[in-house]
Amino acid sequence: MSEGRKVIAMQESVLAENQRAADLNREEFARRSVLVVNVVSSPGSGKTALLERTLEALNGQVSTGVIVGDLATDSDAKRLEGKGAKVVQITTDGYCHLDAAMIERGSQELGLTGLELLIIENVGNLVCPAAHDLGEDIRVGLLSVTEGEDKPLKYPVMFKTLQAAVVSKVDLASAAEFDLELALRNLHEVAPQARVMLTSAKSGEGMEEWVAYLRDSARRKKH
Amino acid sequence: MSEGRKVIAMQESVLAENQRAADLNREEFARRSVLVVNVVSSPGSGKTALLERTLEALNGQVSTGVIVGDLATDSDAKRLEGKGAKVVQITTDGYCHLDAAMIERGSQELGLTGLELLIIENVGNLVCPAAHDLGEDIRVGLLSVTEGEDKPLKYPVMFKTLQAAVVSKVDLASAAEFDLELALRNLHEVAPQARVMLTSAKSGEGMEEWVAYLRDSARRKKH
Repeated sequence: MSEGRKVIAMQESVLAENQRAADLNREEFARRSVLVVNVVSSPGSGKTALLERTLEALNGQVSTGVIVGDLATDSDAKRLEGKGAKVVQITTDGYCHLDAAMIERGSQELGLTGLELLIIENVGNLVCPAAHDLGEDIRVGLLSVTEGEDKPLKYPVMFKTLQAAVVSKVDLASAAEFDLELALRNLHEVAPQARVMLTSAKSGEGMEEWVAYLRDSARRKKH
Repeated sequence: MSEGRKVIAMQESVLAENQRAADLNREEFARRSVLVVNVVSSPGSGKTALLERTLEALNGQVSTGVIVGDLATDSDAKRLEGKGAKVVQITTDGYCHLDAAMIERGSQELGLTGLELLIIENVGNLVCPAAHDLGEDIRVGLLSVTEGEDKPLKYPVMFKTLQAAVVSKVDLASAAEFDLELALRNLHEVAPQARVMLTSAKSGEGMEEWVAYLRDSARRKKH
């Protein structure tokens, strides 16, 4: 085998190993009826800000845990603490995504007993997390209005895997001259399966719809 | 060897192969006295907008070629065409970064004869391109004001490798409540070696300094 083919074979074996771990996670999450949401986006799309407002809105009414992944620092976990949810930080030490084994360890550290909602804040990256199932029920992708309308077309692998797409920072839409109609058309072209929601963590716009979506999905998972 | 250790060994061998190709690129670029600039950032930080304004400002006075990397689409290359530079698009087909072998092929397609400046627009990603030397003289990282001040701390591997850091979209700074002082402190902490420039492709702020930096660097490479 050539070096290139060996690398591809090795990557396939790593992905297969991740898939086995993800399937085990999914079985465990189903057994415990906990809804698992994997939040992905570019760096700086506002994942942590969205989750801060989300935890405040859930206000302890839905028993929630959060696993936060970052290459370095625990600043996101610190921002999410004290809002009624258990929070675990995973530092990936250079890896560009969380994997299913990290989520298994993070879940154990968090403790799944009594949990209704587990939110995973993935590493900021529109490429690597796409190929790594974590055992989640819902993969949510954020697209902030400042990133441009073309991102679904340029990162189709990720957008095709989403159950929900959150257009974030809509308060900045006019300052950024964001063409919402074009963005929605691009989203629909690449990810027709995704439920699209418009939000601003700053102004609160769309937060009710987003939080209701989480709450309803968690309720459905329970029954 | 365990599966994990085999993967790490394989990744090291891929990186070593990339380094050999990058060293050959660097020799070739030196022989031809062409300055090579590798532009990296998150998706949507404004790399293409910066390069559109840059090519307009250079106005054909510096013989320039551009290699554009994307997972999918050739929309960035199309935006850069007709501005006095030769443009080649590389579609990485799922890969999260350009590698040195792609740049070798792209350079051949572009033709290096007579070129003074070769700009590489990397795939939008703050992780994977960090580990992949392309043979460039200058690695420039963009940090848009809408991404938040903490990004240098959260993606230190990338920021540590930069010769220059461009804070982009400064026209949106007040709308995004961007704390410039904090961002500069974080940049300086992680990347004290980097020349920092503030720019807006929209208002034109800082474009003169940035273009002069490119022009001066290209002149120095020639002599």
